[in-house]
Amino acid sequence: MKLSVKNNDRVLILDTLKKTGEEVKLFGWVLTLRRHGKIAFLDLRDRSGVIQVGFFDQELVEKVAKLKPQDVIEIKGLVKKRDERYINANLPTGSIEVEAKFLERVSEASEMPFDMGGKDLNLELPTLLDNRSLALRHPKVLGIFKVQETIIRSFRKTLEEEDFTEIFVPTIVPTATEGGAEVFQIQYYNHKAYLGQSPQMYKQIMVSIFERVYTVAHAYRAEPSVTTRHLSEYISLDAEMGFISSYQEVMDKAELVIKNIYRDVLYQNKTELELFGISLPQVDKPFPRIKMRDAQEIIFKRTQRDHREEPDLDPSDEKEICNWAQEEHGVPFVFITHYPTKKRPFYTMPDPEDPEYTLGFDLLGISEEWVTGGQRIHDYEMLVENTKKWGNKPETFEIYLQSFRYGMPPEGGFAMGAERITKDILGLQNVREASLFPRDMERVDERFSKNETKDQK
Amino acid sequence: MKLSVKNNDRVLILDTLKKTGEEVKLFGWVLTLRRHGKIAFLDLRDRSGVIQVGFFDQELVEKVAKLKPQDVIEIKGLVKKRDERYINANLPTGSIEVEAKFLERVSEASEMPFDMGGKDLNLELPTLLDNRSLALRHPKVLGIFKVQETIIRSFRKTLEEEDFTEIFVPTIVPTATEGGAEVFQIQYYNHKAYLGQSPQMYKQIMVSIFERVYTVAHAYRAEPSVTTRHLSEYISLDAEMGFISSYQEVMDKAELVIKNIYRDVLYQNKTELELFGISLPQVDKPFPRIKMRDAQEIIFKRTQRDHREEPDLDPSDEKEICNWAQEEHGVPFVFITHYPTKKRPFYTMPDPEDPEYTLGFDLLGISEEWVTGGQRIHDYEMLVENTKKWGNKPETFEIYLQSFRYGMPPEGGFAMGAERITKDILGLQNVREASLFPRDMERVDERFSKNETKDQK
Repeated sequence: MKLSVKNNDRVLILDTLKKTGEEVKLFGWVLTLRRHGKIAFLDLRDRSGVIQVGFFDQELVEKVAKLKPQDVIEIKGLVKKRDERYINANLPTGSIEVEAKFLERVSEASEMPFDMGGKDLNLELPTLLDNRSLALRHPKVLGIFKVQETIIRSFRKTLEEEDFTEIFVPTIVPTATEGGAEVFQIQYYNHKAYLGQSPQMYKQIMVSIFERVYTVAHAYRAEPSVTTRHLSEYISLDAEMGFISSYQEVMDKAELVIKNIYRDVLYQNKTELELFGISLPQVDKPFPRIKMRDAQEIIFKRTQRDHREEPDLDPSDEKEICNWAQEEHGVPFVFITHYPTKKRPFYTMPDPEDPEYTLGFDLLGISEEWVTGGQRIHDYEMLVENTKKWGNKPETFEIYLQSFRYGMPPEGGFAMGAERITKDILGLQNVREASLFPRDMERVDERFSKNETKDQK
Repeated sequence: MKLSVKNNDRVLILDTLKKTGEEVKLFGWVLTLRRHGKIAFLDLRDRSGVIQVGFFDQELVEKVAKLKPQDVIEIKGLVKKRDERYINANLPTGSIEVEAKFLERVSEASEMPFDMGGKDLNLELPTLLDNRSLALRHPKVLGIFKVQETIIRSFRKTLEEEDFTEIFVPTIVPTATEGGAEVFQIQYYNHKAYLGQSPQMYKQIMVSIFERVYTVAHAYRAEPSVTTRHLSEYISLDAEMGFISSYQEVMDKAELVIKNIYRDVLYQNKTELELFGISLPQVDKPFPRIKMRDAQEIIFKRTQRDHREEPDLDPSDEKEICNWAQEEHGVPFVFITHYPTKKRPFYTMPDPEDPEYTLGFDLLGISEEWVTGGQRIHDYEMLVENTKKWGNKPETFEIYLQSFRYGMPPEGGFAMGAERITKDILGLQNVREASLFPRDMERVDERFSKNETKDQK
């Protein structure tokens, strides 16, 4: 074991592009090894990217023969332009390579349980998750989280520019906020407490303090089924704002956030988008905004599927109305407003012109719900009444109701799951791929039952 | 109830400073009301600040008489320079006031349970927390969280500039990471899981993916006592980095983070620092770095308190060595290294020159621990051995150990609690004041037992 590395004159792989003809010192992980008779090559990965290193000296080639994938190594060598014929257009450093003069192993890896060298990591999801810490090193897998970082930074940046204050709200809560069953219970000293299903109530309270707030929160759903679009713990991107002129203004902000996310991913994640072969759609046109009943009418006309009496859109409806938005409005996004009051949470503001429907909205993107939001009830008496009507006890929401008792302006907000947006932007099959260490019914890191069949040891 | 406000030409209170002689439309909360015979004044609060509004028209003064503190109102009026004699130097807008021409109530508040108008909110902590949603509206209380926002943004910004990737790690974990007792248990479907005591293991794993990572995490400690410096749920600011030349490099990064936090709070929170009457100390000099045994020697020489055989510093030692740092090195910070190996977590790297002591460190600030960190064991065999030696089963740490089995560079990192730093910078008495909705043994929003004596109903 080497206790440390001499990193004072280290060069990052991406920076070698500016060092042609110079000697550089690199550190990183061996991604792949290739032997061609008396010469050898390896691909080296560090935090900035991947580069090819060539070994032409006999002594070094023998050292390379003893290396394994994922070994941590130090390389010194000369940066050279590649011959035209060998340029690798898929790699940002594909026009150069390093001719090694020195090689040392810093830390040794065990034998790989699967090949990490391919463009794709073709593993079944259980294998991917059983070997999560290793699999995340694959350039395409880690790329997912570079994109996710951009999404979350973009969310923050947009709202900072709009004068929102960032808040940090607790995850341990005294009661189920969004309805009873799908909540995890905590043994809290000698009491019971729960994991918050969303930061909803706290962000609403904070409107009376800072007017405009956002939070990157952890949210928890004890969803008793395994689907491709639900996680038991997820990152909730939440915003809430007071002194609104109408629920339309809340949609304006949500639309701005989504447009900026697209712009930022497009400019900051070129490498990752290329790895996934994604060209992001243009989303600069206004997102259409229609009532749920009108959406059902459109779907009926387009497909003859008559869901016009249904209280909600089903997944096929959501996909169809997104297709309509793309065809008619040139964007794969559409706001659906005026869902039935009884299908929305107790705090949603009913439309005064037709209280059977609310001033809540969902933003559907590509084919599913991306954002949910709306105007909230800010009147204390009305909120207390609705709390009861939805079967909750107002006294368990004291800290929440307190905010409304002491003067709350008209307000609204929205929320979105960071993993779902990451999944949809990159076209992933399963939302679990967009969570570093996904939690579901079957596993918390390890699968619960070791006796279940595994497709890979 | 007004469903909405016409906010199209709204002016924020702080922006009235640029509008002398102009008509403005303001929205906000009534902070205080003052009647002087036929005229009236109120202080109005919005997200940007506080301003005095004067009412000289008889009809308006009668309307003001019906207002209550915390009512949400709309004001239209003329921005005027105040007479020299009435300038309020404590208020950023103290040189102007608004002469009201129009007043309308947007949302009505109930009677206050206590006076919110004073410079300080002189409440006992239980009262402050029972009325948390209201108390947070006090300019000095909400100021705490403007400072906290700066601290956390500064942490992120420094590490982004140092090429760290932001990660988001789960809070539901399969096992207690930092030792057994002080952990909350979750009923997780039909299994048991726990709330993570820190993001430690996940951030270490992520070094093998991104080399340098940071996270703003939730961490949980089932601390079975109520002290002024512990919370059951807190915000942990965590960083971890690979390819280090030594543990000194980890301290360099921690020192940079703290210095930038001081700089950013100083420049961005002038208003809040003034409210608290704080002048931040200069922290631009290098922080001294000494071994624990040497610190004990210094303390012995300064105080004749002989703690030279103790395995740790006690609170009085921490305070004394901070005093020494201020006196001898001109900064209230000091790194203490080389704590005894058996007093540090199993993953801490022992000093190869004296394995009884580690390459871990604490940064003591003002009078207590601000940051804890160190170099970690990156060698797989050594880490497995230590896991066992500390009484843990390696098989419960599979996803963690996996990272080290497949090649990990020399690495280290550090962590700090956002609430504690906020408390110490503002000189607060209790860390609960620096948590929006603090969780402790006695309460999750509401106190658990309603039968206990309350100092305020």
